[in-house]
Amino acid sequence: MFYIIGLGLCDEKDITLRGLEAVKSSSRVYLEAYTSILMVQKDRLESFYGKELIIADRDMVESESGSDGILKDADKEDVSLLVVGDPFGATTHTDILLRARNLGIPTRVIHNASIMNAVGASGLQLYNFGQTVSLVFFTETWKPDSFYDRIKENADGGLHTLVLLDIKVKEQSEENLARGRKIYEPPRYMTVPQAVSQLLEIESLRGEGVLDPEKTLAVAVGRVGGEFGPPLHSLVIVGKRLHHLEVEYGEMFAEKQSGRREGRERWRKVAREVYSVALD
Amino acid sequence: MFYIIGLGLCDEKDITLRGLEAVKSSSRVYLEAYTSILMVQKDRLESFYGKELIIADRDMVESESGSDGILKDADKEDVSLLVVGDPFGATTHTDILLRARNLGIPTRVIHNASIMNAVGASGLQLYNFGQTVSLVFFTETWKPDSFYDRIKENADGGLHTLVLLDIKVKEQSEENLARGRKIYEPPRYMTVPQAVSQLLEIESLRGEGVLDPEKTLAVAVGRVGGEFGPPLHSLVIVGKRLHHLEVEYGEMFAEKQSGRREGRERWRKVAREVYSVALD
Repeated sequence: MFYIIGLGLCDEKDITLRGLEAVKSSSRVYLEAYTSILMVQKDRLESFYGKELIIADRDMVESESGSDGILKDADKEDVSLLVVGDPFGATTHTDILLRARNLGIPTRVIHNASIMNAVGASGLQLYNFGQTVSLVFFTETWKPDSFYDRIKENADGGLHTLVLLDIKVKEQSEENLARGRKIYEPPRYMTVPQAVSQLLEIESLRGEGVLDPEKTLAVAVGRVGGEFGPPLHSLVIVGKRLHHLEVEYGEMFAEKQSGRREGRERWRKVAREVYSVALD
Repeated sequence: MFYIIGLGLCDEKDITLRGLEAVKSSSRVYLEAYTSILMVQKDRLESFYGKELIIADRDMVESESGSDGILKDADKEDVSLLVVGDPFGATTHTDILLRARNLGIPTRVIHNASIMNAVGASGLQLYNFGQTVSLVFFTETWKPDSFYDRIKENADGGLHTLVLLDIKVKEQSEENLARGRKIYEPPRYMTVPQAVSQLLEIESLRGEGVLDPEKTLAVAVGRVGGEFGPPLHSLVIVGKRLHHLEVEYGEMFAEKQSGRREGRERWRKVAREVYSVALD
């Protein structure tokens, strides 16, 4: 059996009992380590699960030869691929599942929380989210802005937008890439201030009034289930179809974040005056 | 500490290790049993978790007196509320969390998979979903159709729509309600054929061409993580922004479902001709 197992969002204890059983029964356990990151290190996972973990990088999971290596003998014994969040967060996992099935290998997916549903911890209702967008690191010459149209589509329908922030793991510099040197840059994670700055850069170029520093509410989402601190972070652009319970839940964070009543008052003021939410 | 713990989608083994720890440390454990259902019975959960479970119905979780009962002494000892899926699937849980915090009770949410992210198991990319809609049981006189506009908004943007199907748990008949008798009807779960029939009924009334039995692709989603069979089921209306990998993943189900190649061929034909997906 080939298992793809979601690890959830935070640490080694977020695996499900069903997932842990599969890990323990597996002769090889891979840890996918590029579409997202856990808050804990590999060795801590290894000692907790009592299994050695083989790091599976992008080459391995996405190439045919690499994935054939992962799937080797999975028709005769159990093999697991561990994935941060839920297995269906990234296209690459449907890909390897398709390959397994074409090879006649039985497969099983073990689900877990991912940012796509745990973003509900912001207090914003999942029903009111539109399409999700990704924001990549801009360079001097490459500033893809298709996310802007999608946020606008969502905003026009009054919907919230989950903005996933770029991570760069095992990336090569242009020089190392050109010279074929397998030397990798340290991992980089986009922060919320960087994301906001990129969003406003595109707003100033496009000028369609989708994002306004004075009039758009947004919620920064940290490690859901852990403490706010290290990456990954995400951002939610709040849509106009906003319910007073969503405002009330969010204002706890506004107060905490700014460390004073002012943040909360400003949050409520914009909700009332710009979003037209009836509040006491 | 007041814990709200997601149980995931399938059975007693879908709880996370963190969730199980919280259950074991709690002096009282409530099981919320109306916004969704698990595939297993209460007594099986009780023997597996080694804890007696107190059923929390809608009156209990949503009323102030009821939730105060749940939250009693949670400032001094651990109390858990178990919820099918993830705690942020339904408004009611932000409500009880807000109440706890207003009472000065520390809270912690333990996330899990829910249909909102596990629907990725359909092979349809979560990025390409628009807003989620709910479909309630129609009666002779009550056929709310606001979902139609939302599916249309999603379809106009090329997006998929997750349609959550109604469940009726602990509902009273009009007569019993009128007479104040606490007698409840057996639980009812909307099936996919019922859902399709209601959708097409509204299409024929509204006539805006959003749904067409010959031209609209849809995926029925069963118990994700379990075998397709008992409720809950959900339905995805497939949007036009469809990727060939999504078609290829979906065709496995089309074949399995119809039990012959015909289903698969029809799925591919509509994907190619109506959705304009380039396929081999």
